[in-house]
Amino acid sequence: MNRSQLIHQIQLKQSYLCVGLDTDIEKIPDHLKFNSDAVFQFNKAIIDATKEYCVAYKINTAFYEAQGLKGWDAMEKTVNYIPSTYFKIADAKRGDIGNTSAQYAKAFFETLNFDAITVAPYMGEDSIRPFLEYENKWTIVLALTSNKGASNFELQKTGDEFLYEKVLRTVSKWGTPENLMFVIGATRASELKNIRKIVPDHFLLIPGVGAQGGSLKDVSEYGLNKDTSTVAHCGLLVNASRAIIYASQEKNFEEAAKKVAQEYQKEMSNYLK
Amino acid sequence: MNRSQLIHQIQLKQSYLCVGLDTDIEKIPDHLKFNSDAVFQFNKAIIDATKEYCVAYKINTAFYEAQGLKGWDAMEKTVNYIPSTYFKIADAKRGDIGNTSAQYAKAFFETLNFDAITVAPYMGEDSIRPFLEYENKWTIVLALTSNKGASNFELQKTGDEFLYEKVLRTVSKWGTPENLMFVIGATRASELKNIRKIVPDHFLLIPGVGAQGGSLKDVSEYGLNKDTSTVAHCGLLVNASRAIIYASQEKNFEEAAKKVAQEYQKEMSNYLK
Repeated sequence: MNRSQLIHQIQLKQSYLCVGLDTDIEKIPDHLKFNSDAVFQFNKAIIDATKEYCVAYKINTAFYEAQGLKGWDAMEKTVNYIPSTYFKIADAKRGDIGNTSAQYAKAFFETLNFDAITVAPYMGEDSIRPFLEYENKWTIVLALTSNKGASNFELQKTGDEFLYEKVLRTVSKWGTPENLMFVIGATRASELKNIRKIVPDHFLLIPGVGAQGGSLKDVSEYGLNKDTSTVAHCGLLVNASRAIIYASQEKNFEEAAKKVAQEYQKEMSNYLK
Repeated sequence: MNRSQLIHQIQLKQSYLCVGLDTDIEKIPDHLKFNSDAVFQFNKAIIDATKEYCVAYKINTAFYEAQGLKGWDAMEKTVNYIPSTYFKIADAKRGDIGNTSAQYAKAFFETLNFDAITVAPYMGEDSIRPFLEYENKWTIVLALTSNKGASNFELQKTGDEFLYEKVLRTVSKWGTPENLMFVIGATRASELKNIRKIVPDHFLLIPGVGAQGGSLKDVSEYGLNKDTSTVAHCGLLVNASRAIIYASQEKNFEEAAKKVAQEYQKEMSNYLK
């Protein structure tokens, strides 16, 4: 999916919601838990219930890998089930020397048909380049994350800027707003004004709304690009995982998930005006 | 495998060689390539041929993920095939917020029976803690890597030290030499003297000998802990991947791999004296 297709979907749905499929077998409602294909059945129900209100799905690979072969199978089935009009993100946080990153790119862009993958910047340019070489695929580089540990390195000064600012400034030269996004945690809304000065046109993937405590209002206020005349329009994908998929542990969990997704979409449509 | 068991194996074999199973289906000799279980059959042959000369195997997860479900199956079979007296490393470079890192730890320490996993430090303490909580398992944190891109961030100054030095100094407080190692690229031998001042007792995993151009002599000279009276004895695992497993593309590739592994072991036994 390319940038104009993504923006088209955002305008159509009046939503920049990404639903995070961090599907933990332990948290699946009891009536599905013992199904031999529980994770995929759960995801299928969540996708069907939420697809009216979101433009993207983010699969957190850790939860699938924890289940071994069965989990990888569920991930493959889930990616294939999501319609092609949705932006499909592998939240995999990969990154290695060039020949190895090329294999990760192959895994997520060819073997599995994702549109985007999250990548850690620590190892530098040749660890990120192989992902950027795919046409109509996206590399989403970690910049400032939502967790407490961000203070250990991301928020350390390198010269006169924070490490995450150096990451934004450096990595943004390796790609374009057509193939590169950045991860900014939703708990960092106050930094978004400054971040938008460094990367005015790039889409930002913002996880951390809901269970992690980030505010949709704040990230929208500081992160949205409202000028509809520019390519930078919208420029946000805001992800909620646990708040949507575990909205209820009951039999009608889909309906609870749908309701939460709908509420996010409604709020987003106001901010897009 | 705990630290004293690892040191015992090093002394027994007079080797600190780790064989990297970066098994690329494209590079498997023709007579095996079309076997339905080619990757595992290749790995099995390499393990049988090299196990006399090494103490560890490192599986680069990217090469397996690139093959999807089949690759994950080959990885599982390979880990299970390696005898328990060998130190089994998942070179996976994972790391995410705490609840996600806990799932990665489960994937590699429980679902797959690895002894160790490589982890990226960018997201800080809570992204690394979940790995450290496993008894007799190891977390191997990226510090200074062998690739060119290390100059982008790892070798940037934060205050009066390089970022990788801050990583060493900070992360070493979160674990002990009994459950924590660091990755230092073999092309960084000249930095090892300084690195040993920051982390005198920790094992270092050193990839980059062979195809990436690092020198075994140099890393051994600057990185080995020679004092046999301390727990810090040896303190190195030096990895070679392509130089061993692709030593020959012919039918007798195992023999070529064995020969290279034996040469490394012989050289190492000299440095251990």
